[in-house]
Amino acid sequence: MNRLVVTVIAAAAALTSLSAAAQFQKPEDAIKYRQSAMTVMGNHLGRVAAMVQGRVPFDAKVAAENAAIVVTMSKLPWVAFGEGTDKGMPTRAKPEIWKDQARFKDLENKMMTEAEKLEAAAKTGNLDNIKSALGPLGRACKSCHDDFRNEKYSN
Amino acid sequence: MNRLVVTVIAAAAALTSLSAAAQFQKPEDAIKYRQSAMTVMGNHLGRVAAMVQGRVPFDAKVAAENAAIVVTMSKLPWVAFGEGTDKGMPTRAKPEIWKDQARFKDLENKMMTEAEKLEAAAKTGNLDNIKSALGPLGRACKSCHDDFRNEKYSN
Repeated sequence: MNRLVVTVIAAAAALTSLSAAAQFQKPEDAIKYRQSAMTVMGNHLGRVAAMVQGRVPFDAKVAAENAAIVVTMSKLPWVAFGEGTDKGMPTRAKPEIWKDQARFKDLENKMMTEAEKLEAAAKTGNLDNIKSALGPLGRACKSCHDDFRNEKYSN
Repeated sequence: MNRLVVTVIAAAAALTSLSAAAQFQKPEDAIKYRQSAMTVMGNHLGRVAAMVQGRVPFDAKVAAENAAIVVTMSKLPWVAFGEGTDKGMPTRAKPEIWKDQARFKDLENKMMTEAEKLEAAAKTGNLDNIKSALGPLGRACKSCHDDFRNEKYSN
């Protein structure tokens, strides 16, 4: 790959992290990344929830597509909660994340598992199945947010 | 689905958009979402680029996983560039996006196509194939950023 193309990619990407050794060069890269992954996940989970709540018409294909994105996103944020990423830009991450890694990890896993169950339910094309899977996933989100996410962003 | 669970999900999600009719309730929801999708896409593209550039050891499985995430993310931002989302929170989106929708759409499609080619290349497990696919994708990113993205965020 020639130097020009490498430069083009580096410039074009202009990204959060083109880090070599580390996935994130700076704590703020990690914080921005995990917040972004959560934002995207939340949006797509919200689209499924809107169907379950009857606020938008149920469309099995759209529900399944959104659930699949939720699963993809559910796997991403965790690597960005490394040591030293408790500050660097405004964050709602509580210090408890780094004090109780075992519980944080348990709740990560719980959420990922419930997201996969939602995707499986969505693949059946049956709204009742999706409803049944959405509750446990919502509770998994909430239990982690309750313990590990502040109401307000740090400065 | 009972009211408690609905409330739990609404609270747990605490998301950018649980919008009913519209995917995004407010312009800032759309802007935050598209910026988040770009951030996640950029991070994972950066991980592939780091291997191509020799800054991290090549791992075919990891490259393929990251390329797959790039493809998923490449499809997401566009719906969030609706009319009226030119402001609402700091954004680098140029007004040209809404003045030349045909070209913007062309560049979207080009990027998505090149992302799929990168994924296909990554699936071969061959670093040279990945190198060959990364250049055109990088240029697709850059051509759109050149025309439609400002250097600085608006206030």
